[in-house]
Amino acid sequence: MKTLALWQEVQADLKKVEDELLKQVNAPDLTFSEAAQHLVKAGGKRLRPAFAILAAKCCGATLEKILPLAVALEMIHMATLVHDDVIDASPLRRGKPTVWAKWGQQVSLHLGDYLFARSLVLVSTYDDPRIPSILARVSVKMVQGEVQQLEAAFDFEATLRDYLDRIYRKTALLISASCELGAIAAGADKETVRHFRNYGLNLGIAFQITDDVLDMTADPEQLGKPIGGDLRQGVITLPAIYALRESSEKQKLAKLIAKRNKSTFEIEEIIKLIKECNGIDYALKLAERYLERARREAFYLPQGQAQDTLIGLTYFVKKRGF
Amino acid sequence: MKTLALWQEVQADLKKVEDELLKQVNAPDLTFSEAAQHLVKAGGKRLRPAFAILAAKCCGATLEKILPLAVALEMIHMATLVHDDVIDASPLRRGKPTVWAKWGQQVSLHLGDYLFARSLVLVSTYDDPRIPSILARVSVKMVQGEVQQLEAAFDFEATLRDYLDRIYRKTALLISASCELGAIAAGADKETVRHFRNYGLNLGIAFQITDDVLDMTADPEQLGKPIGGDLRQGVITLPAIYALRESSEKQKLAKLIAKRNKSTFEIEEIIKLIKECNGIDYALKLAERYLERARREAFYLPQGQAQDTLIGLTYFVKKRGF
Repeated sequence: MKTLALWQEVQADLKKVEDELLKQVNAPDLTFSEAAQHLVKAGGKRLRPAFAILAAKCCGATLEKILPLAVALEMIHMATLVHDDVIDASPLRRGKPTVWAKWGQQVSLHLGDYLFARSLVLVSTYDDPRIPSILARVSVKMVQGEVQQLEAAFDFEATLRDYLDRIYRKTALLISASCELGAIAAGADKETVRHFRNYGLNLGIAFQITDDVLDMTADPEQLGKPIGGDLRQGVITLPAIYALRESSEKQKLAKLIAKRNKSTFEIEEIIKLIKECNGIDYALKLAERYLERARREAFYLPQGQAQDTLIGLTYFVKKRGF
Repeated sequence: MKTLALWQEVQADLKKVEDELLKQVNAPDLTFSEAAQHLVKAGGKRLRPAFAILAAKCCGATLEKILPLAVALEMIHMATLVHDDVIDASPLRRGKPTVWAKWGQQVSLHLGDYLFARSLVLVSTYDDPRIPSILARVSVKMVQGEVQQLEAAFDFEATLRDYLDRIYRKTALLISASCELGAIAAGADKETVRHFRNYGLNLGIAFQITDDVLDMTADPEQLGKPIGGDLRQGVITLPAIYALRESSEKQKLAKLIAKRNKSTFEIEEIIKLIKECNGIDYALKLAERYLERARREAFYLPQGQAQDTLIGLTYFVKKRGF
């Protein structure tokens, strides 16, 4: 498959990101460094570095030029994950024990702070003042997105608009910034930078929608955690928002979703009701609309193999099983 | 008293810092904004903004020029406090309930992240790339200092060197950076910047030593929390390090300090033993040595009223009762 072949090509660059990530977290302090290395080794798709690298290559920059930024983007992402795991008291992520589960709250809290600060040290090596500035701004909005998510828990009035606003802050912004900053670091012109930003924003929203769908439909083995995690935490995502409005068994669904400490059977029942009224199809269709927008933006990017990959990725997002 | 009169003069500028702090934390999100405002209104000495303002004025800059940096420095400090209160499970700070006690872990965690990211947005308004870079570097080291403190809890082998290294990261670095960055923002030359950095470093160490002494000797009313907080948490500070080495009742002292869940009587007993072997005097004498070094650095700073205040502050640090 062409998309995957192209994606594979970035994997060589991502290997270098991985090495650099491990180097960055190799702090002199032992407990801390162990936890940080566990976090890096637990893996991840490394989407943000991949987008930054693709954007930079699209604009003719070398990997060396983009590497500190790519690593910093993943570190910011990891910082949010490690703090999220404290907030959600998550025992598992990607099938492995979280830092919170293994080292507790204190280490998790410090590790998140450390990764974030360290990422800003990394980007301070760039001359362009837009780079730390954009990253700081995006980080502020990401935190606000997290708070919105907390406040929206068990909120049955949540609308499509609330949901989109939340995932925009929570996910799309950093993916968008990854594309944008990759282009900026490569010295792209203003127009091109704008197209990268918009590409990332649309793709990021589609990515989070499919992520939320996968939380209801994926194979738990592939997902690395039990399905229905959002429902368990009261996070009402797009398929549920749609079903709460359209299901013929609205009342029953609302009552089930409102329950604290749901059983596995109840989770399955909720997902069944959501599927029956086409909540999953609805969400995937909306994701497709954002992917089409991302594709449209991608056509304006500098032509070449990196552009092909960025276009190819818009087809891949919806098809992934993890 | 001359020192206090001069300090009062900065209070007018600090009032503007206060207004700006409140403006910065007035987030659209309600719960969050309430917690943030509580944190700002709980007060504090605003030492870091004061030092940045004094340094900038010393170098001829206006308050307007320095205000975003001054506010950012206090926000970074507040970010560390709000995360520390989670880690220490502290119910009170400055006599008021902590954000952790009132709003819990989730809000505290997000608020700290928010304040830190927001402070970096503020400093991105400066052209000089050294400003965000120094702040990020200092933040990384501050986190490492916090981790060191956690690891050193109940460690009876802690030496003077370990202690100084810990308080250097935990406190002195940000005070030093406040002086240094104030001078940088004011466009000072390299030599002057270096003297400001060293002034802040030495004063910061003396400040933390006296803070640690006050934790054993202060009036709890003035301190805003019960005394002996460090001992309760197993944080072994300078007077205790000295006493564990010099006391004629070393064994008894070590046994008492090692106890988890100490009673108020036991805390009083420990402090009595420390005082008996002059642990407090020893610590204050060491603080005085750092204050002398700070004073020496201050003589090289641009002359004027701000310099007088900076010199005056080196006399004030040890005399304060809070």
